[in-house]
Amino acid sequence: MDSKYPQVTLMRSVIYTDLAKEEYRHKLLAWHMLHVADSISQFEPYVTKYAFYQALPVPPEGERFGVARFHMCEHNWLISPFDAHITAHAFNEYMPLEVLKWQNSVPDDEDTADIFLTGDEFRSADGSNGCRPFVFAFMPMWWEKDLKGKERTIQDGFNYRWQFLVRYPDEITEEEGEKWLFEVLERFKEMPEVTRILTSHVYQEVNDCKFQRCVEMWFEGPNEWYRACVTKMADMPKPDWAQQDKFPFLKPMFNFTSIMVPDIPYSDNLVSYRGNIMKR
Amino acid sequence: MDSKYPQVTLMRSVIYTDLAKEEYRHKLLAWHMLHVADSISQFEPYVTKYAFYQALPVPPEGERFGVARFHMCEHNWLISPFDAHITAHAFNEYMPLEVLKWQNSVPDDEDTADIFLTGDEFRSADGSNGCRPFVFAFMPMWWEKDLKGKERTIQDGFNYRWQFLVRYPDEITEEEGEKWLFEVLERFKEMPEVTRILTSHVYQEVNDCKFQRCVEMWFEGPNEWYRACVTKMADMPKPDWAQQDKFPFLKPMFNFTSIMVPDIPYSDNLVSYRGNIMKR
Amino acid sequence: MDSKYPQVTLMRSVIYTDLAKEEYRHKLLAWHMLHVADSISQFEPYVTKYAFYQALPVPPEGERFGVARFHMCEHNWLISPFDAHITAHAFNEYMPLEVLKWQNSVPDDEDTADIFLTGDEFRSADGSNGCRPFVFAFMPMWWEKDLKGKERTIQDGFNYRWQFLVRYPDEITEEEGEKWLFEVLERFKEMPEVTRILTSHVYQEVNDCKFQRCVEMWFEGPNEWYRACVTKMADMPKPDWAQQDKFPFLKPMFNFTSIMVPDIPYSDNLVSYRGNIMKR
Amino acid sequence: MDSKYPQVTLMRSVIYTDLAKEEYRHKLLAWHMLHVADSISQFEPYVTKYAFYQALPVPPEGERFGVARFHMCEHNWLISPFDAHITAHAFNEYMPLEVLKWQNSVPDDEDTADIFLTGDEFRSADGSNGCRPFVFAFMPMWWEKDLKGKERTIQDGFNYRWQFLVRYPDEITEEEGEKWLFEVLERFKEMPEVTRILTSHVYQEVNDCKFQRCVEMWFEGPNEWYRACVTKMADMPKPDWAQQDKFPFLKPMFNFTSIMVPDIPYSDNLVSYRGNIMKR
Amino acid sequence: MDSKYPQVTLMRSVIYTDLAKEEYRHKLLAWHMLHVADSISQFEPYVTKYAFYQALPVPPEGERFGVARFHMCEHNWLISPFDAHITAHAFNEYMPLEVLKWQNSVPDDEDTADIFLTGDEFRSADGSNGCRPFVFAFMPMWWEKDLKGKERTIQDGFNYRWQFLVRYPDEITEEEGEKWLFEVLERFKEMPEVTRILTSHVYQEVNDCKFQRCVEMWFEGPNEWYRACVTKMADMPKPDWAQQDKFPFLKPMFNFTSIMVPDIPYSDNLVSYRGNIMKR
Amino acid sequence: MDSKYPQVTLMRSVIYTDLAKEEYRHKLLAWHMLHVADSISQFEPYVTKYAFYQALPVPPEGERFGVARFHMCEHNWLISPFDAHITAHAFNEYMPLEVLKWQNSVPDDEDTADIFLTGDEFRSADGSNGCRPFVFAFMPMWWEKDLKGKERTIQDGFNYRWQFLVRYPDEITEEEGEKWLFEVLERFKEMPEVTRILTSHVYQEVNDCKFQRCVEMWFEGPNEWYRACVTKMADMPKPDWAQQDKFPFLKPMFNFTSIMVPDIPYSDNLVSYRGNIMKR
Repeated sequence: MDSKYPQVTLMRSVIYTDLAKEEYRHKLLAWHMLHVADSISQFEPYVTKYAFYQALPVPPEGERFGVARFHMCEHNWLISPFDAHITAHAFNEYMPLEVLKWQNSVPDDEDTADIFLTGDEFRSADGSNGCRPFVFAFMPMWWEKDLKGKERTIQDGFNYRWQFLVRYPDEITEEEGEKWLFEVLERFKEMPEVTRILTSHVYQEVNDCKFQRCVEMWFEGPNEWYRACVTKMADMPKPDWAQQDKFPFLKPMFNFTSIMVPDIPYSDNLVSYRGNIMKR
Repeated sequence: MDSKYPQVTLMRSVIYTDLAKEEYRHKLLAWHMLHVADSISQFEPYVTKYAFYQALPVPPEGERFGVARFHMCEHNWLISPFDAHITAHAFNEYMPLEVLKWQNSVPDDEDTADIFLTGDEFRSADGSNGCRPFVFAFMPMWWEKDLKGKERTIQDGFNYRWQFLVRYPDEITEEEGEKWLFEVLERFKEMPEVTRILTSHVYQEVNDCKFQRCVEMWFEGPNEWYRACVTKMADMPKPDWAQQDKFPFLKPMFNFTSIMVPDIPYSDNLVSYRGNIMKR
Repeated sequence: MDSKYPQVTLMRSVIYTDLAKEEYRHKLLAWHMLHVADSISQFEPYVTKYAFYQALPVPPEGERFGVARFHMCEHNWLISPFDAHITAHAFNEYMPLEVLKWQNSVPDDEDTADIFLTGDEFRSADGSNGCRPFVFAFMPMWWEKDLKGKERTIQDGFNYRWQFLVRYPDEITEEEGEKWLFEVLERFKEMPEVTRILTSHVYQEVNDCKFQRCVEMWFEGPNEWYRACVTKMADMPKPDWAQQDKFPFLKPMFNFTSIMVPDIPYSDNLVSYRGNIMKR
Repeated sequence: MDSKYPQVTLMRSVIYTDLAKEEYRHKLLAWHMLHVADSISQFEPYVTKYAFYQALPVPPEGERFGVARFHMCEHNWLISPFDAHITAHAFNEYMPLEVLKWQNSVPDDEDTADIFLTGDEFRSADGSNGCRPFVFAFMPMWWEKDLKGKERTIQDGFNYRWQFLVRYPDEITEEEGEKWLFEVLERFKEMPEVTRILTSHVYQEVNDCKFQRCVEMWFEGPNEWYRACVTKMADMPKPDWAQQDKFPFLKPMFNFTSIMVPDIPYSDNLVSYRGNIMKR
Repeated sequence: MDSKYPQVTLMRSVIYTDLAKEEYRHKLLAWHMLHVADSISQFEPYVTKYAFYQALPVPPEGERFGVARFHMCEHNWLISPFDAHITAHAFNEYMPLEVLKWQNSVPDDEDTADIFLTGDEFRSADGSNGCRPFVFAFMPMWWEKDLKGKERTIQDGFNYRWQFLVRYPDEITEEEGEKWLFEVLERFKEMPEVTRILTSHVYQEVNDCKFQRCVEMWFEGPNEWYRACVTKMADMPKPDWAQQDKFPFLKPMFNFTSIMVPDIPYSDNLVSYRGNIMKR
Repeated sequence: MDSKYPQVTLMRSVIYTDLAKEEYRHKLLAWHMLHVADSISQFEPYVTKYAFYQALPVPPEGERFGVARFHMCEHNWLISPFDAHITAHAFNEYMPLEVLKWQNSVPDDEDTADIFLTGDEFRSADGSNGCRPFVFAFMPMWWEKDLKGKERTIQDGFNYRWQFLVRYPDEITEEEGEKWLFEVLERFKEMPEVTRILTSHVYQEVNDCKFQRCVEMWFEGPNEWYRACVTKMADMPKPDWAQQDKFPFLKPMFNFTSIMVPDIPYSDNLVSYRGNIMKR
C-alpha cells in the first residue's frame, strides 16, 4: 500500500448462494431483506450496484454442474472491499450461524455449542466441512471476451442465463486449463441452442479466490441448456485430469460452480430497497 | 348503478399464477416486469398495493392441493375494477397468447392461428381447455377471522405461508361446505405445526368468482406443512362429495387451488418498480 | 353538507396551461418545479395522481382550436378539492401575479400596483381581461364512452393525443350541443387518421365549470391531425350558432380549448418529484 | 356495522410521543426506524400520509403546558383503524415494554416480570400509572376553523408551530369549555406574536378519545411563544374549574397536552423510508 | 492501456438531440422513456448523472446558430465509455433506424431496405448524409473558466441557458480559433443581457470529437438572447475564414451547434425514472 | 496539479453544525431542507453519501467538550471538493448571513449593513469573531484504528455516539499530542461504559483544517457518557499545556469540538430527499 488512498479498481463480483434444503428457502429470502440494510450501511459509498437474481430451478442433471439453488448476488465496486485501507468497519456484519446452515455453508447438523470459528470464518471455508465452498469472485466490470451474440438487444427476447466459475485442477497449469476451456467454448459457439457467450478472467488476487474464469452463456430455456450441455457434450472427450466422468469433468461446487438466472434482478438493492415490509 | 360515482369498496384480491413448464419461468419473470408498467398505467389512481410474491417450490404431494408454481399477485383496491363506472380504458391490456401458455391458462400446443378468442377470454376460461382455471378472488381488505396465532409479531421468525381458495362442490350447499371446512380448520388449530390461521370469505359477486373462501395458514417450513396437511390429515374422514380420495378431497385447481409464499414480496410494484433494468 | 365526512368522489381533472410568450417558457418550467412542493403539501392525502404532460407545439391552424402552449396538469382525486368540508388550508397557495402573466391568465402589461384581486381571483377570471379563461375541468376517473380503437395496446406505437373541452354556445341547449358534437365525432370515427376516440362529460357542478364535455382523440402525428381536423372537416356544414367560420365553429379558448400531449408525463409528481435540482 | 365495507372517513390523527429521559432519546429514534416497517406493513393500503415531526425542545415553563419531548406522529386515514371491519391483523404490532418506558407510558422502574398486561394495554393507559396518558386524537383531514393568518404562504418564513389538545374538566360541559377556549383564542388572535391559528374538534367517537379539541398556533420562535403564552397570558382570569394556577389552567398531560414542531417532518415514512441504514 | 483497470476520468458529456420534423416529437419523447432502461442497464455502475433537458423552442434566426430542437442529454462519467477496458456489452444498444430519422441523423426518406450500416454507424455519421452530424462531446466535470456571473445563486431567478459547441474551421489553428472566440466572449461579457458565461475545452481525444470548445451563456429569456446574439453582434467583423456571412460565422450544425435549455431537467434518469407509465 | 483529471481520493468529511439559540432551531431545520437541493445540484456527480444526523441534546457539562447543538453533516467524496480542477461552479452556494447567525458562525447582533465579507468568508472564520469556528474535517472513508468493540453488530442495541475532533495546542508537537490522546483512549478502553472506540487522523491538507484527529466513542446513553467522560476522567492528570482545568483540557470549540448523534440519519439526502413538503 504505497498511497494514502485506495486505488480505484472498477470491478464486478458475484456470489452464488446455495440453499441446503427447501425447508429454508422462505427464511433465507426474508433474512436477506434484513441483511440488505446491514450491507448498504457498510459499503454504500463505494458500491454502485448491488442486486439479487433469483436462482432458476436446477435443471435435470444440473447437480454435476454444481448449480446453486438460491440466488446470485452481484456487486459493482469502485474499490476492492479487501483493500488494505479498509481497516475498520463501524459494525461487524451480522451473520448468524443458522443462516450459514440455510446457505449450505455449514453442516445442517452442526452443533452451534462447539463452534469456535466466527461466522465469517465458516463462510470462507474451503469446503472441508463437506459443504459448498464459499466463492466470492471478482472480475472486470465489463465482460472481457465476447464470443457469440454481440448483436443481441433487449428486443430479442428473454434469456435463460447460465453463469459458471471454473477452478482448473491442481495438476494442470492455468494455461492448459484455459486452452481446454476455450476449446469447450468453441464447441458451444457452434450450437444453435447457445445465443450468447461472454467470459472474463477472475481477479484472483483480490481475495485469494481459487477460481480462475467466469463464463456466461444464454439459452432460450432449460431444454436448450440440456440439449447443449448434456446431450451434445456427451461425446466430448474426457480429459486426463477429469474429476468426474462426464462434462464438465470438474468436481461440482469445488471446481465447477454455476447458477441459472433470469434477465432482471428480483431486488436491485441500492435503488429499490425499502426495508422489509411484510405481507399483511 | 344508482350513483354518479363508484362506491368505495376497500378490498384485497389475489391471483395465483401458475407456470406450465420450467422452460418458461425466466420468460414469465421478465415479462411481468414489462407488464407492471401497463398495469400501473391502468389502475394507479385506485389501487393502494400491488405486489408479487414468489411461489415457493411445490412440496411433496402438493399437486393434489393444486399448488401454483409461479407467483401470487396481490392488489388492494379502493373500488372494484369491475365497477360499472369503469366503462373505458385508454389502453387495452397487452397480454399475448404466448404468455397465457407460459402461465398454463392455454394449452401449450394451442395453434395461435385458430384463435378467435381474445387473450382475456382465454384467461377467464373455466378450465374447460384442460388448463388451470384463472381465479381472481376478491375479499375484505383485512382477514375476517383470526383462528390461531394472533399474538405473533414480526419478531417471531420468518413464515412459510400457505394460502388456499376453496370452491365447494356443486352438490352441497355453501353452508354445508363451510361447516366441513371449519371442522378441518379446527383440526389444524390443534396442531403445533400450524402457527397461524386466518380466513375470509370471497366477495364472489365482484366478478362472479366461483370460489367461496380463502384461508392462510403459516408453518415453520414445508416439512411442517407436510406433517400437518399430509401425514396428520391422512385419517380425516372422506366426505360423501369427495372429488379425490385424499385430503383436501376437492378437485385440484378447479375446487382447491393454493400457493406457498414467503413473508416479503419480491416486487412491491407501486413503490419499487423502476422499469426493467436488465442484467449487464 | 349532510355528512361528517366528505363524500368520496373518484374524479380526474385537467388544466391546460398556456404560455403568454416564449420569453417565459423556461421560467414557467422552473417555477412549476417549485410549485409542486406547495401542491403536494396541500393535497397529498387525497390525490392519487398528479402529473404534468408537455404541450406539443401548436400545429398549423391550431389557434382556432384554442391550443394551449405550455402543459396539461392532470389530477386524480379521491374527493373534490372544493368539498365543503375543506374549510381551511394551513398554507395559502403561493401564486405570484407574474406567474399568472406567464400563463396568459393576466395581461402581460398589467400594472401590479393597481391589483386588488388576489392571484386566485385572477386565475379564475372568465376571460373578460382578454386573456385565456382559466378552465379546471373535473370528470369521471375513467373515460365514459369509447368510440374508437378500444383494442389498442401499449405495443401499437406512440400516440399524438389531442384533448379538447367544449362549452356549447349559450343560445343552444346542452342536448342540441351534444347532438352536434356526437355527429362530429361520428365523422372522425370514419377517418383512418383517427386511431382512438374517448369522451366524458364534465362534472360542471364541482366548481361551476362552464365547459360540458371533454374529448380525447389520438393520431399518428400532427400531419394526420391536420388532415383530419382541418382538411377533412373543411366541408363540415357551418351551424347556425357558429362563433367562427371554420370548424370547430366555437370561440377559441372561450368555448373550445385544447392541447396536444404525448403518451408519457414529463413529471409524475407524486412518485418522481425530488425538489428542484438545478443543472450544474 | 350495517355495510359490507368500512365507510370511508377521511381523517387525520396525531400522537405526541414523549421521552421519559434523555438517556433514551437515541434509542427511541432508532427504534422508530425499525417500527416504521411494521406499521407500513399493517396500514399501507388505507393510510395516505404517515410522518414524524421532531419535537422542538421544551421552552421555559413548557412543563405546565404538557409539552411532549420526542416527536409528533401524524397519519392521514382513508378509514378508521378502529373500524369494526378490521377484525384481524396478520401481525400483532411489536411494541416491547422497554419502548413504552422510553416513551414515558410506563414507569421506568416497572418490573417487567410482573406485567400481565399487553404492551397495547399499557400504551392505552389513562395515566393512572403516573405516566403520560397515551392520546391518539382523530380529527377532520383539514382544519375546520381558520382564525388567523389564512393569507400566509410558504414564502412567508419558517414557522414555530405549537399544537395542543384540550380535555375540558369533568365539572363543566363541553359547551362551557369551548366558550372559554374560544375566548382564549380571541386573545391570542390579537397578539402580534401569533401568526396563525387553526383549530378542529376531535372525533372522540373513533377511539373514545377523552380530548375534545385540537389547536395549532404559529409563532416566529419560542421567545414569541413565551411572550404570548406566559407573559401576556399572565393576567388571564383564573376560571373556577382551574386545575393549576396559571394558564392554561388545565392539568398538564392529562387535560392539556402539547408539542412544538417545525414545518417539515424528519421522516415522511410512506415516501422516504428505506429501512434502517445505520451510520458507518 | 497499461493498467489492469480503467483510469478514473471524471467527465461530463453532452449530446444535443435534434428533431427532424414536428411529426415525430411525441414519438421521440416516448421512445426515450423506453431507451432509458437500456441505457441504465448498460452504464449504471460508472455513470453518476444522466439527465434530459427539454430543448426550448428555436428563437428567431436560431437556425444559423445550429439550434437543436429536441433535448440535451447530459451524462457524468467516472470513466470514459470508450475506455479500452470496456470490451464487451451484454446487450447491444437497441436503436432502430426509424429513431435516427426522427432525430435527424439519417435522411427521412432513407430506404431502410438498402441499409447495410448499423444504427450506430449511422448515428456517428459526419454529416455527409446531409443530416445533422452526431456530436458527443466530453469535457471536464466542472466548467473550467468562469467569465461572468460567478456570484449568481439559485435565488437570482430562472435562467435561459444557451450552450454551444464550436469546431474551428480547418484552415485556422486551434490557437487562432480560441483567440477569436475569447474576443467574442469578451464582447458578450460587456453586455447586460448576458448574466453568466462559462466555458470548457472539449476532451477531443476521448472519442475523436471534432469540436474543440463548449460555452454556456445565460440570459433572462430569448428576447435578451436575440438582442445580444443577433442585434448586438451584427457589427462583429466577419473573419477571413467565415463559413456564413453573419455571426457566429461558422457552418451551422457542422461547426457551430447549440441548444437552449431551462434550469431543471425534465427527467433525471438515475433517480426519477420509473419505467414508461402511460397516460390513461 | 499534474494531471488532466482530479485524483480520486475516497474520503469522508464531517461538519458539526451548532445552533446559536433555541429561537432558531425550527428555522435552521427548514432552511436545510431548502439547502439540500442547492448542495445536490452542486456535487451529486462525485458525492456518494450526504446525510444529516440530529445532534442529541448537550449532556450536563457538555459545554466544556464543545458539544454542537444542531446536527452533523456527513459527506462521502470520490474527490476533494477543493481539488484544483474544480475551477467553477454554475451556481454560487446560497448562504444568507442570517443562516450563519442561526448556526453560531457570526455574532447574532452583527449588523449586516457593515459586512464586507461574503457569507463563505464568515463561515470559514477562525473564531476570532467570538463564534464557533467553522470546522470541515476530511478523513479516510473508513475508520483507521479500531480500538474497542469490533465484534459489535446491528443486533447489539442502539448506540449513543460521541464524535470529537481534536486540535492539539500550538505549543506541543502533533506527536506529543497524539501520544497524550492515545493514552486517554487507553483509559476509555478500560471503561465498561465505552462500547466502541474508532479513530482516524484528519486529512488536514485537503482544506488546511486545523484539527488533527477524529474519534468516535459509543455509549449506552448520556449517563454512561457522563460517568466515563466526567466522573471517571476527573483524576486524569492535567497536562502542562492545558487550556482549561478539566478534561479534555483543550479549549472548547477551538481545540476540542464534538457532537452526540444517534445511529440513523434523519435525512439521507441523496436517497430520501423529496423537496420541502410542508406540514399541512
